[in-house]
Amino acid sequence: MENIVTVGGGTGSFTVLSALKGQPARLTAIISMSDDGGSTGILRDQYGVLPPGDVRRALVALSESSDVMRDLFNYRFNEGGLKGHSFGNLFIAALEKVTGNFSSALQEASNILNIEGEVAPVTLDDVRLSARLRDGKIVRGETNIDIPRDPKRAPIKEIWLEPDARINPSLKRIFHSADLIVIGPGDLYTSIIPNFLVKGVKEEIRRSPAKKVFICNLMTKRGETDNFTAYDFLKTMDKYLGKNVLDYAIFNNKRPPERLLRRYRKEGAEFIDPSGLPPASGKLKYIFADVIDTDKFVRHGPPRKLAKVLMGLAKK
Amino acid sequence: MENIVTVGGGTGSFTVLSALKGQPARLTAIISMSDDGGSTGILRDQYGVLPPGDVRRALVALSESSDVMRDLFNYRFNEGGLKGHSFGNLFIAALEKVTGNFSSALQEASNILNIEGEVAPVTLDDVRLSARLRDGKIVRGETNIDIPRDPKRAPIKEIWLEPDARINPSLKRIFHSADLIVIGPGDLYTSIIPNFLVKGVKEEIRRSPAKKVFICNLMTKRGETDNFTAYDFLKTMDKYLGKNVLDYAIFNNKRPPERLLRRYRKEGAEFIDPSGLPPASGKLKYIFADVIDTDKFVRHGPPRKLAKVLMGLAKK
Repeated sequence: MENIVTVGGGTGSFTVLSALKGQPARLTAIISMSDDGGSTGILRDQYGVLPPGDVRRALVALSESSDVMRDLFNYRFNEGGLKGHSFGNLFIAALEKVTGNFSSALQEASNILNIEGEVAPVTLDDVRLSARLRDGKIVRGETNIDIPRDPKRAPIKEIWLEPDARINPSLKRIFHSADLIVIGPGDLYTSIIPNFLVKGVKEEIRRSPAKKVFICNLMTKRGETDNFTAYDFLKTMDKYLGKNVLDYAIFNNKRPPERLLRRYRKEGAEFIDPSGLPPASGKLKYIFADVIDTDKFVRHGPPRKLAKVLMGLAKK
Repeated sequence: MENIVTVGGGTGSFTVLSALKGQPARLTAIISMSDDGGSTGILRDQYGVLPPGDVRRALVALSESSDVMRDLFNYRFNEGGLKGHSFGNLFIAALEKVTGNFSSALQEASNILNIEGEVAPVTLDDVRLSARLRDGKIVRGETNIDIPRDPKRAPIKEIWLEPDARINPSLKRIFHSADLIVIGPGDLYTSIIPNFLVKGVKEEIRRSPAKKVFICNLMTKRGETDNFTAYDFLKTMDKYLGKNVLDYAIFNNKRPPERLLRRYRKEGAEFIDPSGLPPASGKLKYIFADVIDTDKFVRHGPPRKLAKVLMGLAKK
């Protein structure tokens, strides 16, 4: 049975993990730890805990528990003093307080949710994300980077973590025994790259015998990847992960329906058309496939199709 | 194996259940449902849920789960926006929201906490407790009755629930198959009697083939049982449960150390000395025993001793 390791955080990881769940593979989710928005941000600020939100999503994706438990973890209080809090976030935060550390909290939560696989935070250090824009301005905090206050702000030039973060010691074993490392999809600067900013992570990924695949996003994102071409994504991966690390890059080549694109355009998001890519260099191979789900949103899917492509690579 | 059913709510039930846990008996905890204070009160007011607090304590008492899970359920946020909330209360409240009803929430929580036995709310109706004082004034809400705003207010004349509450249908089966029903200890007017105010409960207790034992409190409580003698407790039980229902009444006959009594006296609480009781009437038998734990508080215990007395009655 193959070991598949996903690297990301947020909705993108949830999509890939959900697609791979039930496949004959051992799944491990590496989750970025710089989220500081919403319920997660409040819990970090008020209780000094590590960010529970993205870890919670991955736990729910891998849970073999009853629907009730999964619904409970995703339940969000929509009024009163707990308004905006996700119950699962409170669960992980309280567990961290009770056990005294995030790893034990995660272990307990994994047991309760009956996880098939493993969820591993990329670091156990308390870090915040910062960005320097092309105009020299500095933006602090993942949420401020993620949701630009000024919709016309300059593009991101570079991002880093403060303070420096050490790699979660479990990751060495995880990457070493991986058969396939799946990077993305997800917000490039706020979910994917923050993983590579943790000291030792990109070295362990490079050292891993696994094949490395990058799943390119379907749509650009305002404030993060405006006007990005498919090639811009690859260049940014080269910059933060290192050159000649990826074995495969998966690009969706099916254009979503115009009615959906119109809605996304209002949010400043454009379809990423991979047709203009220059030829792949080094060991990198491109995979073009119809891996798009356009039910209500533009998402990777359907699960079965996405899983087929990834399982094909894992077994190569 | 005997079926032992406790009737109460709050700390008293927790003490008895903890003492009986591990004994060769099937335990069921009937819990009063009129609590409206603290974390429980906020959750009732803001989310329209049934009171989780006393049910949570009973669940923790019967839990065979890891210490971490028990600690988690009892964990109280002591700062920030969640200040004062017990995590277990949030758990039960969120489960009620997710499942749509308190019974299902309780069932899920029982599974997660790996309960040995059963916790049964006395009613599934949304009720509030009211009291009429001897001076005619009416006090609404359990917390207002429990913690008098005016330390010199008149004694309680009678209490009732609003609106009328129907018995939890499970209680018929529970009382019918009981070998021993243990009533108390606990706050007389705010934990014990509210159970008998639910329509059908005292009838089912009377109809039950079980022996019925009342564990009298150790100390009086300001605003509820000021100046109560041991006999006053029995008379109040007669009034609300009915005459000639109890088979046994257990009275502690060991006086706590003076240093502890001094501390309790500051809170308006006096030791209940059973030595002046008139002879027992009808089928009632008195049991006098040293069942007191005076480590830091005046509590029933130690668990082994309390269990021995109760198991002796269950097997009679």
